[in-house]
Amino acid sequence: MRNFLIAVLAFVAGTAFAADPLSSWNDAGPKKAIVQFVEKVTKRGSPDFVPVAERIATFDNDGTLWSEQPMYFQLFYVVDRVKALASKHPEWKTKEPFASLRKGDMKGALAGGERGLLELVMATHAGMTTEEFEKSVTGWITTAKHPGTGKPFTAMVYQPMLELLAYLRANGFKTFIVSGGGIEFMRPWTERVYGVPPEQVIGSSGGLQYEFRNGKPVIVKLPQLVHNDDKEGKPVAIQRHIGRRPIAAFGNSDGDFAMLEWVTSGPGARLGLIVHHDDAGREVAYNRKSHVGRLDRGLDEGPKRGWIIVSMKGDWRTIFPAEKP
Amino acid sequence: MRNFLIAVLAFVAGTAFAADPLSSWNDAGPKKAIVQFVEKVTKRGSPDFVPVAERIATFDNDGTLWSEQPMYFQLFYVVDRVKALASKHPEWKTKEPFASLRKGDMKGALAGGERGLLELVMATHAGMTTEEFEKSVTGWITTAKHPGTGKPFTAMVYQPMLELLAYLRANGFKTFIVSGGGIEFMRPWTERVYGVPPEQVIGSSGGLQYEFRNGKPVIVKLPQLVHNDDKEGKPVAIQRHIGRRPIAAFGNSDGDFAMLEWVTSGPGARLGLIVHHDDAGREVAYNRKSHVGRLDRGLDEGPKRGWIIVSMKGDWRTIFPAEKP
Repeated sequence: MRNFLIAVLAFVAGTAFAADPLSSWNDAGPKKAIVQFVEKVTKRGSPDFVPVAERIATFDNDGTLWSEQPMYFQLFYVVDRVKALASKHPEWKTKEPFASLRKGDMKGALAGGERGLLELVMATHAGMTTEEFEKSVTGWITTAKHPGTGKPFTAMVYQPMLELLAYLRANGFKTFIVSGGGIEFMRPWTERVYGVPPEQVIGSSGGLQYEFRNGKPVIVKLPQLVHNDDKEGKPVAIQRHIGRRPIAAFGNSDGDFAMLEWVTSGPGARLGLIVHHDDAGREVAYNRKSHVGRLDRGLDEGPKRGWIIVSMKGDWRTIFPAEKP
Repeated sequence: MRNFLIAVLAFVAGTAFAADPLSSWNDAGPKKAIVQFVEKVTKRGSPDFVPVAERIATFDNDGTLWSEQPMYFQLFYVVDRVKALASKHPEWKTKEPFASLRKGDMKGALAGGERGLLELVMATHAGMTTEEFEKSVTGWITTAKHPGTGKPFTAMVYQPMLELLAYLRANGFKTFIVSGGGIEFMRPWTERVYGVPPEQVIGSSGGLQYEFRNGKPVIVKLPQLVHNDDKEGKPVAIQRHIGRRPIAAFGNSDGDFAMLEWVTSGPGARLGLIVHHDDAGREVAYNRKSHVGRLDRGLDEGPKRGWIIVSMKGDWRTIFPAEKP
């Protein structure tokens, strides 16, 4: 009975995977390296075999799974929230960075650097319960459009990376997001868009407080940054949330350097991969000097460390998913 | 083909579950309520049906999955660490709470309350890399014995709760631990003992820092408490790690009250359960006045809120797993 069942399962699996699971990847070095890595860690008896429980892969989000230009997409949400909340905050007419932002002057609004940015995020994210915030994000992400492309933001995800996520999961990997973006900004839609459930999303996070509103327990978002999930904050958050070292990591900027370094310096087979934005025609070309998603050290040191540098222009057949007819 | 495969799978599953999955539970109210809850949330078409992705269950550890008397088992690790490190810390001969602890005077050592306790934990847990700490805990837990029973601590887990964990997982639940104990003290052994992987363990946690030692990246445990995973800290940690409200929660003390309250006040079918330590013969009887695992408010309010109060004496056929021959 058991052997028969295995034969049936093998037949079904064989049918399902007859098509190329990475069909949006050109048959070049990066695709070959990914497939080789997956085959050796999943092959029983191979010296590089990794048990299913330890097949953990972590993905940055902005610039790795979806676009991030001309600014992180979460900031478009912030802008729309500031506009929506403006009538309740007359003081924002003159107070920076709100005043610049209301006039559409993003450069002025972001002139205050990280501190001003944090103030904007806190003013627009905190005070709500986590469930109110979830509703707000869900409503926004299903209607808002990117000003450059006119597409919904969730249509600006990378088709080759969606295939990679699915390919890894089909091979027993648990896929996590480890992003500088807000943990609660991502969770409402990552399951639908990436197949990554909320409990596998790690990000920057604010304070939370358990309290009662209208006689019911709620969790309220506080205006304080508890964890900045960037650079060295990424391996730290991986340790806190996952509790073991992943065997594969995917990023696109120097903000992912420490995560790739941590992941690829463990024992056994390891995969580190950097998405290089070099396709001005189909997306945006930027690297060493970009304010958003700067990639400098990773471009120099990555290859020496055995990390794969993916050329979006050369290695990807398509960038975005085909639009639904 | 597909229908046939389903039939084969159903046959195999039917065989596997012919035996009672909760055989250590007496056929009383609590067992019936658990089975009824699981059947209604897993039955397609039922008004209470819950999709697999939302079947999240959270378990307290100390006193819920394993014993906690005469003190939290993690403290036995602390005592052994203080003894092991004593030669490197001559100042502990006179400095409290170390001096009392070295003399075996636990009451004196814990006289300083939470602050003294925290000092003990920090002195014995911090400074190590997370991988060194994991090795230390793994070594200790496989050799240390409970002074009262002479058993390994991991043999003092509750057989009925092991069955409950497995039963829920067999019904599509993802099981998480949400404990006041240290997150990194639990992770090295929860997968082997409870079937709960590290990424599904939530607990109290200290600061972490990414740094280099001997030219290699490591994560070092810092002597600071970042999250106290008790009382209102539990729903907050559930939100941060899981990002959605569980539908079932299991605890044993008033430290779990907020978690049960948060979980059972959501919409749809919910299960809240409290393990009541009332079995002086087979374990230890304690509740309202205990310093460890005090259960007072939960005993009064739990039944009014529809929570199941499990009598260890009356509802459990066995307490601990049978010893291997």
